Amino acid sequence: MAGLTFTIAATDGAARTGAIRLARGIVRTPAFMPVGTAGTVKALYMDQVKALGADIILGNTYHLMLRPGAERVAALGGLHTFARWGGPILTDSGGFQVMSLAQLRKLDESGVTFQSHIDGATYTLTPERSLEIQALLDSDIRMQLDECIALPASRAEVERAMRLSLRWAERSKAAFGRPEGRALFGIVQGGDDAELRLESAAGLAAIGFDGYAIGGLAVGEPQDVMLQMLEVTMPALPATAPRYLMGVGTPEDIIESVKRGVDMFDCVMPTRAGRHGVAYTRFGKINLKNARHADDPRPLDETSDCPATRDYSRAYLHHLMKSGEMLGAMLLSWNNLAYYEGLMAAIRAAIAAAAYDDFRAETKAGWAAGDMPAHG
Amino acid sequence: MAGLTFTIAATDGAARTGAIRLARGIVRTPAFMPVGTAGTVKALYMDQVKALGADIILGNTYHLMLRPGAERVAALGGLHTFARWGGPILTDSGGFQVMSLAQLRKLDESGVTFQSHIDGATYTLTPERSLEIQALLDSDIRMQLDECIALPASRAEVERAMRLSLRWAERSKAAFGRPEGRALFGIVQGGDDAELRLESAAGLAAIGFDGYAIGGLAVGEPQDVMLQMLEVTMPALPATAPRYLMGVGTPEDIIESVKRGVDMFDCVMPTRAGRHGVAYTRFGKINLKNARHADDPRPLDETSDCPATRDYSRAYLHHLMKSGEMLGAMLLSWNNLAYYEGLMAAIRAAIAAAAYDDFRAETKAGWAAGDMPAHG
Repeated sequence: MAGLTFTIAATDGAARTGAIRLARGIVRTPAFMPVGTAGTVKALYMDQVKALGADIILGNTYHLMLRPGAERVAALGGLHTFARWGGPILTDSGGFQVMSLAQLRKLDESGVTFQSHIDGATYTLTPERSLEIQALLDSDIRMQLDECIALPASRAEVERAMRLSLRWAERSKAAFGRPEGRALFGIVQGGDDAELRLESAAGLAAIGFDGYAIGGLAVGEPQDVMLQMLEVTMPALPATAPRYLMGVGTPEDIIESVKRGVDMFDCVMPTRAGRHGVAYTRFGKINLKNARHADDPRPLDETSDCPATRDYSRAYLHHLMKSGEMLGAMLLSWNNLAYYEGLMAAIRAAIAAAAYDDFRAETKAGWAAGDMPAHG
Repeated sequence: MAGLTFTIAATDGAARTGAIRLARGIVRTPAFMPVGTAGTVKALYMDQVKALGADIILGNTYHLMLRPGAERVAALGGLHTFARWGGPILTDSGGFQVMSLAQLRKLDESGVTFQSHIDGATYTLTPERSLEIQALLDSDIRMQLDECIALPASRAEVERAMRLSLRWAERSKAAFGRPEGRALFGIVQGGDDAELRLESAAGLAAIGFDGYAIGGLAVGEPQDVMLQMLEVTMPALPATAPRYLMGVGTPEDIIESVKRGVDMFDCVMPTRAGRHGVAYTRFGKINLKNARHADDPRPLDETSDCPATRDYSRAYLHHLMKSGEMLGAMLLSWNNLAYYEGLMAAIRAAIAAAAYDDFRAETKAGWAAGDMPAHG
């Protein structure tokens, strides 16, 4: 397969930095992909997302297939035209949201039938249909359909889902075909069981993909279990392919996962937290709804390049959130995505400088020191 | 009083165009003032508001006194610093929202006592306290406290409220003092009664204000009643002072009111309609929630300079509104304010060219012709 070219420019321990070359652009790694659920990164203009340094965004097959519909998006010129994002887009398979959002799911060997959470209409998602939808959206990186189960779960259940996901991986690759300049990733499953994770990784590597995702983590298990699974899985994946940890995570999750060799991340956290009044900063998480900010004329962080972070007082942000004003969500989503993308840029620079452990320690110390003392 | 300098550059019939010079900037008239209710023009960044050509915004005393509180805003450097708007700001007196939003109102000669719609706390608003709050906010144009009643109402009731408003006008002027570079407007009341309107206008002119507002219109009466009241009132107001029609209105209301000599407007309509999926355009009002737009790749108006109007497909806007995505409200509020501010610029140019009636007829014909035929 040659849907992408992945170049590793530097490594520092298991951490690596480089670039994924795709038909629509270059993704600097380690990369954080803002989540554009339904064709919009919530509360932000795409111009802002781009300016923050995001090279690639994620689109959710589940949401887009239900509304506005994949065939409609295709008729409108594909997801890039529809959502006005010219760079690379990764689409997930839809499987994860079917499990978490849809009603009346019925899963069997062929795929999953479910009712839309929007209007109750019945849909079927198979590996073939998922890849067909992703082709209609014309995403740059496409994901195999898998079954992602919540943890804790019995070993038998984890094993069953992992084996099914492997069989779906084969069908997904066949359904993907060989579209010019488009890439397909397989997804490692296996829950919190090292043996099953290794079986999954080996099975996927044998099938052969442009990149490998680690799924089924950050679904309720402790962070140390997640990191342990990464340590087990990474050596079993082809070193020359990009590795994508799905749905992760907090800034600390990202820092720890990069240390273990992960190249790509996505998470709704920066935009979701922003809508709920929480800011990610170099001082750690700050809840702007807290009354301590009500009279504070200082910005979140005067040293930032992001206008949302540097130019608006905490008192104003507090007021906007308490008043339910949309601008509050707009500014905090902007701040948070700026923080995430800035973190990724710093991570890449630290790896390139062979100083990742120092960077990691300093960043975590900054969070641990906490927010500046209250004003006045 | 000399809180402002008003220069009329050109007239065309009763319509006039010119500039109001204030300490914080120049307001080109006729002017539309975007409403920044609680220190934010909803769903827009202030940079966008400025770039659209707005010279002045409005802040609501009622909302700001309840949250975050006028004393707090003052301690934070005033409303301009708080909301990051460097140009002129007009604040209303709070009276209108007390009547429309607050609970358990008790009005007497001294003022009005009410309970906050947010937390039920009791507040008192008198002419003196309203001007004190507006001074704490440090707005550039301040409004007298008045009593605005809904129409229809009995003549006795309209007369009582108008006379009370006149007495409050005197007290407001005394309370205003003579702050350097700040202006005070009186408010004409009198409902739909020409005689009472004239008495109110004459009374205010005798007291003397920097500008004169027409209040108590667009509160439920037919448009022709509103325009008739303008025709009665305008000649009774000092021709050399700005005239502000409060809370108005639709683009057609504005065009008709300018013809009758109004210089300033404010209305929540562009941003409120935007949040509800309605776009103002040269084709008239367009409801983006309508299914006719679902497959339409065309923008709202490809001839516009506003990115929201020119660069986003109707299909995408439809999708965003149907999905409840914040970006939909952001884009349509942007489009709508662009339309309003563009309309004001065109109005000013038409008056300067002594071609206002032609402009008015062409603009109304464009609305009447309606939206472009459905796609495909």
